[in-house]
Amino acid sequence: MTLTWQHEAQDGAARAGVLHTAHGTVPTPVFMPVGTAGTVKAMTADAVRATGARMVLGNTYHLMLRPGAERIARLGGLHRFMDWHGPILTDSGGFQVMSLAGLRKMDADGVTFQSHVDGSRHRLTPERSVEIQHLLGADVTMCFDECTPFPATHEQAATSMRLSMRWAARSRAAFVPRAGHGLFGIVQGSVFPDLRAESVTALTDIGFEGYAVGGLAVGEGQEAMFTTLECTTPLLPADKPRYLMGVGTPSDLIGAVRRGIDMFDCVMPTRSGRTGRAYTRGGVINIRNARHAEDNRPLDPGCACPACRNHSRAYLHHLFKANEMLGPMLLTWHNIQYYQDLMAELRAGILAGDLAGTAARIEAGWQAEKENAA
Amino acid sequence: MTLTWQHEAQDGAARAGVLHTAHGTVPTPVFMPVGTAGTVKAMTADAVRATGARMVLGNTYHLMLRPGAERIARLGGLHRFMDWHGPILTDSGGFQVMSLAGLRKMDADGVTFQSHVDGSRHRLTPERSVEIQHLLGADVTMCFDECTPFPATHEQAATSMRLSMRWAARSRAAFVPRAGHGLFGIVQGSVFPDLRAESVTALTDIGFEGYAVGGLAVGEGQEAMFTTLECTTPLLPADKPRYLMGVGTPSDLIGAVRRGIDMFDCVMPTRSGRTGRAYTRGGVINIRNARHAEDNRPLDPGCACPACRNHSRAYLHHLFKANEMLGPMLLTWHNIQYYQDLMAELRAGILAGDLAGTAARIEAGWQAEKENAA
Repeated sequence: MTLTWQHEAQDGAARAGVLHTAHGTVPTPVFMPVGTAGTVKAMTADAVRATGARMVLGNTYHLMLRPGAERIARLGGLHRFMDWHGPILTDSGGFQVMSLAGLRKMDADGVTFQSHVDGSRHRLTPERSVEIQHLLGADVTMCFDECTPFPATHEQAATSMRLSMRWAARSRAAFVPRAGHGLFGIVQGSVFPDLRAESVTALTDIGFEGYAVGGLAVGEGQEAMFTTLECTTPLLPADKPRYLMGVGTPSDLIGAVRRGIDMFDCVMPTRSGRTGRAYTRGGVINIRNARHAEDNRPLDPGCACPACRNHSRAYLHHLFKANEMLGPMLLTWHNIQYYQDLMAELRAGILAGDLAGTAARIEAGWQAEKENAA
Repeated sequence: MTLTWQHEAQDGAARAGVLHTAHGTVPTPVFMPVGTAGTVKAMTADAVRATGARMVLGNTYHLMLRPGAERIARLGGLHRFMDWHGPILTDSGGFQVMSLAGLRKMDADGVTFQSHVDGSRHRLTPERSVEIQHLLGADVTMCFDECTPFPATHEQAATSMRLSMRWAARSRAAFVPRAGHGLFGIVQGSVFPDLRAESVTALTDIGFEGYAVGGLAVGEGQEAMFTTLECTTPLLPADKPRYLMGVGTPSDLIGAVRRGIDMFDCVMPTRSGRTGRAYTRGGVINIRNARHAEDNRPLDPGCACPACRNHSRAYLHHLFKANEMLGPMLLTWHNIQYYQDLMAELRAGILAGDLAGTAARIEAGWQAEKENAA
């Protein structure tokens, strides 16, 4: 049997459930830390597990260029390579070809591009993207698509979306079903409700193990993102998982869960952690700020990560001022822990039938640091 | 009672013992990972503990400049600051003023220098160095001395050593005894046996809780270092711990233990780890070397660290090629684990009365990687 998702509870549009994969089960809503190049940056796999994370994301674009998909397959697959024994979702590479690669040329069949690593030429098509994800051993394979740039005219968005729908059919045809593995379609259509609806119809006609909402968090703003979700998620099959790609801030996650999204990934907690930005129950903290230099309190007293359990803000501040690697290491760990705790709290809110109250309490907490800093 | 060292076993000149400190006991011979600026670079305190390390070193020079000794004292001391609850040895700052600081001027009373961090002016004297180490909360305080440069003429070495001996007396006078804490004198005299003997006499006349051998591993070479140890350690009190400062390679450690040294520190395992150099039972490995790119074997099958237990050489190679922080993190962890395992093995060899056999077995193992690489 392919990968499945089991519905457990509903609270408004929000859902709690469990994803069943070849590498174990994952309670949803879930946030997947991003392990771009076979590592969640600045964390050991043991540390990622310690945060309660159950599923991570790998990037096809990075891994195909270095160390190479065939090489990872020869070494036993991505799970073995990065010591991650839970499920892994891989993206299709399409988004990052457009944002990272050098000279690139798109045609109806796929994209030819230059590696940002060494300038070498590569080609991705729906078939090759699915093959690479198979070589990596992905539990969830994503269809190869074009992430429609923002802003786009209705005509541009329609053309782009319809290309992605043709590529979705080719991805489906290329995908080799394996027990506990699945292929997700990606809804496109920019901020146009009619195009989103057309995209959902095209994808559900093909049929996938899950559905992603793509082309958001690309500059349209939170309000437009939420509006687009509101006109998209109700059209998606109720018995399949829904994944909002590349999103987002804690506020984005709360809003999207309330609009029926089950799965998330984002580089924000890891990237922010490396630059000294911490997400806490009291709000966002820039640990480099001088006001933390003699602050003996923990970063977030409600958090059980090593940064909060074992150290003061003063220490974390010192590590960043002294450019010590341990600073990014500890803040990344904390941010991943925060995101995992946030998702667990939202899930508990759904199961208790009080997601609105849960969300209100979390959001009220974020005022504390603003008052501290003022 | 001040810090003490208890003799357990003797094998030739080599000793096994236990150091009793305010923050617990430490079996010797011991290697202390270097936590320069309040962190063993690229490792959490939990990770350092997991290697079996029982005692770490902190640097007076770095900590006095950033975040400042008084600040660390206000925050509860260095143990609390860096979450290290075992004993801490701090150096005196003298060596690093000479190697790192900007414009510096030495007089008979102390040294005035410019911070390498922000150019600010600072002054270290024996009294201030001991005071800083007290503020940090060091279990072992080191006398403020001048590390005699190498090479030095007999006259230069004598002048420098005699200055250090006057400073040792002033350090002793400034030191405030506390239970489980101790002050170590530092033997100088470059490679001249008569000066080393004179220095030992001067220090033992003052009386210290332990004795360091300083001014070695500064370019004189392993043979001269060993010769100097052979004419120094027999003169030191048998009931006090002996510490060889800033040494060294695994081969240096074996040779120095066999010549009666109990304690070591060195940046080599951490610094090497950050650049892709690993110490293993099979010898030294440069993980960046292309021959590791598809090698699915562990770095060191005899090692229980996460790098060896969870990953292949191919993965570690990939992390370094991709400039991922996890590469330096895992190799630092491994190297510290290797150094701890090495010291434990030497200690077991002494306790079993077969240090020579133990050393021969360890050194024979180092041929394996040379053969692999050839």
